[in-house]
Amino acid sequence: MNSQPSRRTVVAAAGATSLTAALIAAPQAAALARPPLAATPVAPAADTSWETCLAVARAILVLDENDTSLIPRYSQILLKGGLPRRRGRAKKVLILGAGPAGLVAAHLLRRAGHEVVVIEANGNRVGGRIKTFRAGGHEGAEQPFTDPRQYAEAGAMRIPDSHPLVTGLLDSLGLKRRRFYLADVDASGKPVYRTWILVNGVRVRRAGYRKNPRVVNRSFGVPKKYEDVPAADIVRAALAPARTLIDGKQGKDLVEGWARVLQRYGSWSMFRYLTEEAKLDERTIDLIGTIENMTSRLHLSFVHSFLSAALISPDTAFYELPGGTATLADALYARVRDAVRLDRRAVRIECGPSGGVRVHTVSEGREGKVVQETFTGDEAIITVPYSGLRHVTFAPALSYGKRRAVTELHYDAATKVLLEFSRRWWEFTEQDWKRELDAVRPGLYEAYRLGKAPADGSLLGSHPSVPKGHISDGQRVHYAAHRAVQRDQPQAAQVIGGGSATDNPNRFMFEPSHPVQGSKGGVLLASYSWSDDALKWDSFDDEERYPRALGGVQDVYGQRIEVFYTGVGRTQSWMRDPYAYGEASVLLPGQHTELFPHVPLAEGPLHFAGCHTSIKPAWIEGALESAVRTSLAVHTG
Amino acid sequence: MNSQPSRRTVVAAAGATSLTAALIAAPQAAALARPPLAATPVAPAADTSWETCLAVARAILVLDENDTSLIPRYSQILLKGGLPRRRGRAKKVLILGAGPAGLVAAHLLRRAGHEVVVIEANGNRVGGRIKTFRAGGHEGAEQPFTDPRQYAEAGAMRIPDSHPLVTGLLDSLGLKRRRFYLADVDASGKPVYRTWILVNGVRVRRAGYRKNPRVVNRSFGVPKKYEDVPAADIVRAALAPARTLIDGKQGKDLVEGWARVLQRYGSWSMFRYLTEEAKLDERTIDLIGTIENMTSRLHLSFVHSFLSAALISPDTAFYELPGGTATLADALYARVRDAVRLDRRAVRIECGPSGGVRVHTVSEGREGKVVQETFTGDEAIITVPYSGLRHVTFAPALSYGKRRAVTELHYDAATKVLLEFSRRWWEFTEQDWKRELDAVRPGLYEAYRLGKAPADGSLLGSHPSVPKGHISDGQRVHYAAHRAVQRDQPQAAQVIGGGSATDNPNRFMFEPSHPVQGSKGGVLLASYSWSDDALKWDSFDDEERYPRALGGVQDVYGQRIEVFYTGVGRTQSWMRDPYAYGEASVLLPGQHTELFPHVPLAEGPLHFAGCHTSIKPAWIEGALESAVRTSLAVHTG
Repeated sequence: MNSQPSRRTVVAAAGATSLTAALIAAPQAAALARPPLAATPVAPAADTSWETCLAVARAILVLDENDTSLIPRYSQILLKGGLPRRRGRAKKVLILGAGPAGLVAAHLLRRAGHEVVVIEANGNRVGGRIKTFRAGGHEGAEQPFTDPRQYAEAGAMRIPDSHPLVTGLLDSLGLKRRRFYLADVDASGKPVYRTWILVNGVRVRRAGYRKNPRVVNRSFGVPKKYEDVPAADIVRAALAPARTLIDGKQGKDLVEGWARVLQRYGSWSMFRYLTEEAKLDERTIDLIGTIENMTSRLHLSFVHSFLSAALISPDTAFYELPGGTATLADALYARVRDAVRLDRRAVRIECGPSGGVRVHTVSEGREGKVVQETFTGDEAIITVPYSGLRHVTFAPALSYGKRRAVTELHYDAATKVLLEFSRRWWEFTEQDWKRELDAVRPGLYEAYRLGKAPADGSLLGSHPSVPKGHISDGQRVHYAAHRAVQRDQPQAAQVIGGGSATDNPNRFMFEPSHPVQGSKGGVLLASYSWSDDALKWDSFDDEERYPRALGGVQDVYGQRIEVFYTGVGRTQSWMRDPYAYGEASVLLPGQHTELFPHVPLAEGPLHFAGCHTSIKPAWIEGALESAVRTSLAVHTG
Repeated sequence: MNSQPSRRTVVAAAGATSLTAALIAAPQAAALARPPLAATPVAPAADTSWETCLAVARAILVLDENDTSLIPRYSQILLKGGLPRRRGRAKKVLILGAGPAGLVAAHLLRRAGHEVVVIEANGNRVGGRIKTFRAGGHEGAEQPFTDPRQYAEAGAMRIPDSHPLVTGLLDSLGLKRRRFYLADVDASGKPVYRTWILVNGVRVRRAGYRKNPRVVNRSFGVPKKYEDVPAADIVRAALAPARTLIDGKQGKDLVEGWARVLQRYGSWSMFRYLTEEAKLDERTIDLIGTIENMTSRLHLSFVHSFLSAALISPDTAFYELPGGTATLADALYARVRDAVRLDRRAVRIECGPSGGVRVHTVSEGREGKVVQETFTGDEAIITVPYSGLRHVTFAPALSYGKRRAVTELHYDAATKVLLEFSRRWWEFTEQDWKRELDAVRPGLYEAYRLGKAPADGSLLGSHPSVPKGHISDGQRVHYAAHRAVQRDQPQAAQVIGGGSATDNPNRFMFEPSHPVQGSKGGVLLASYSWSDDALKWDSFDDEERYPRALGGVQDVYGQRIEVFYTGVGRTQSWMRDPYAYGEASVLLPGQHTELFPHVPLAEGPLHFAGCHTSIKPAWIEGALESAVRTSLAVHTG
């Protein structure tokens, strides 16, 4: 029932608005925003009706309702001409949140003659989930590592070549980009797959695993037929039934293919798909979950993970920004700096009966005093994650569909632990190791090789290159008590970029793709974990978190790396970030068709942007799509 | 395949050990604990084989492998005779964690002549997830509320009559108990269902909703056939297909009934069950999810929620302890106090090749110094939640099945926000309200009734009974900025105990079941939320959390309650508790059959206890079952 989406009566002048119109699936939305709360009985929701699936498929492909790509128009606006010319009075627009969506929307609207105020909760920085641990920057941060040149990413760290808006934006802003190596490379940039897989006590290089997966696969007890199949190939074969619905298709066929994916699997978890569609046993799911990073999200939406696999091909090149992703935030901020009010968090949003928006804000209360301030405008673009909107009061209340989305849209945890080393030991040959360790004390190279170096932490940071005084006594005690298990010393890793996978709590670790100019050291992403894996890291304070993360890296690369540890780390839990409320929206089974259609819809003068309003949550590209979509709607509305 | 559970060769002298034997589902477990890591290829796991389902069904019913109840034997040991007599030398037993499982196991083993050391991470208290905000107690806590007599539960707050071990234990310890009212009662203790349901802007009393659910149900847009059916009845009907498998059955039939529930629905989420088995539409799921507290756990295991519904009938009486649940912790602690080492958290557990256990611990590092200490024993009982064990190093590594359980067993978030009021306004009649409000200032009663009292927070704590000086300026600013939406004043609640349900972020609120002797005030559980709902509260610091929770209560009960707010609250996030790592294990779809069979299994000298090793996670009863089971295994092993 209700399979026919209602069409909004508001004139849809632009593709952006057509998209949101196409997404309207529940009839009450046609009543245009906030119906008198609960006075109007609402009709039952469409379940996964074909029309809903088609509308979500168009959002996946960024098409308007005539199946025309919105990207050329968005690119034109974002990268070239700006918003189209129009007559009519300029508007006063409030933008909530100074992440990439908010900063870009502010620029587009100002350029088109509107008056803009960007309201940002953080007291000292913009960028949202673009955040670099660095010295200086627009936020004037204190030096985070012992080497003042070093920096590392707390958030967004790689940009796929297949994302045209963000790559185009970087180019148009004159920001240089260089390759980010998801797989490790040699000095010439060729992938060599020398990073490690360490699971069930078995350690093999990725290249070795690919060639002979049997020892690893048997350690999981997979059935015979999978003993010789690399995990990535098992995943590929498992996804094939869903892929056949879209592969090789174009235009209308592709839209229908995606709609079929949504209709068939939209309410499935990845766990259900793997057991019931791919017919994998528990042990094989353990294997691919561990190596291919699926375990912690098995209970979440199949479609979410499938989208990532399907939209970003394994050959996609990734980029990073020299100086850190926050240099993009710097550039976006520079254009609108005078319009941004830091230290103002929206807590109550009121829409007047005759139009107009009032946003009540509070400050962070630094120096002990919380300040309240109210902003008024004609319309507002709200880029705050829905997890954050749950505690914002709307008066009058939002529509039913929006309220459910705000209440239920799932946000996932992600935690990073970064450790500084005085040398990039991951690039070392065995000769380098011998030279450097014997510089600490003669014979140390051999002692590590034989597992006979002391394991009590006395060698932490013992290399002459490590500046003194950063390894606290507490770190040493934690290190000594916890102590890495593995005492065998694997061969020198000898890699640039890429990273290793393990079943220890670190889960995934990444080496930097490029040296920091002038520095012999480097910052390792020692642990990157999601969901339940991430929440477990969050219970440790820093003094314990860093030596534990170090222990997990030692499991994989050997004990000897400890001599280069400077004692300084940085960590980011996105679930504990008070204004991010999670890493990104990672939907639960069924939410793509039940909730997503309500997510990007405007309600009267309130527009909704941010990566969660696209089908690319966590990606800057999705934030940019939403920035263009909503500024167009404000501008032409 | 592998549907035949292997039998352990170790002599199973007691029911407890038989139970764990019956739970062994994967052949590698038969090799007795920690096989050389990954050297032995392990066979594929049984999926939901009938034998596995039967074994888990027996764990649900607390039966041994001959389908005989273990409860009489457990009761005898726990409440009367203690552990059976035995010959052979006394053992030195390390017990990790001083929650109810650890404290009870310690007592039983000491009484039987063993030497026991209990290692507890917290520096100042025992009890685990039994935790009362109170003055004094064994932890010597500072007065948490303005009234020194007031106390409130951070954790366990109700004990079902149908849990024989815990009720028996309370009696045997001479601890008085009294009714805890899950539904509100009048002065005579009769349920009156006068608390509120506030959803989609519609506010009705529970009794009114039960009689005429239409307005509420329509506000969700449920299909016509559900418009006149109360949410609880929809849930009951929805669960019927699963219930028919167990209802009215006994003995072997009941075991097989539960096995059938596990086999049929064990890998299903509640969302899947409601959509595919109960054939409910999204709107009806919104309705029952909101009122019956299912929304935040829809993606988690169907079996978990079904067990709660099936094992605790709606007529079950609940009890609470005068003075707080922590008086039970006091009593358990008193018996073994000299055996407990506070401020020692296990971080590394080693088992020697010829037996014996070494446990390396660290302190909390209060006063800036982290201390390391190592304990040795013959065997160990580990009661630490598996979420916490993820970061404990085991040498040698645990078995494959145990490692997967430690990695994957899901723990849910739960957060409570408690607010103190100088009067128990929820018990008031309108006459009481008029008298008390007009005592603040003449005409105030009428001003509130007409929605004309100032909404800026100037009346917070304005009643003469509120001690001055506890409402900070920050709280006032947050209150004023956020401001409750509802300005209409519902009738006086006039209830004792019970609580209201709302779709606002507070979700569930509970009034105390009994006054605190000598105090006219009371502490309200202003918000009790789970899972994603809970994580969102965790982003607020206390200064903001309390006025926001107050606003949510005002939505439901009216603005006027603010005059009694003392400005003092307490809050507990179990996900952020550094040693709890969550409220309890709430399993994901499939985990009851894939992971649970490995959870209670001993590995060599290591025994595993705690509520997560029972099928009653979060209940003290489950912790007690595990305490008897493991102390019996240590004692007779």
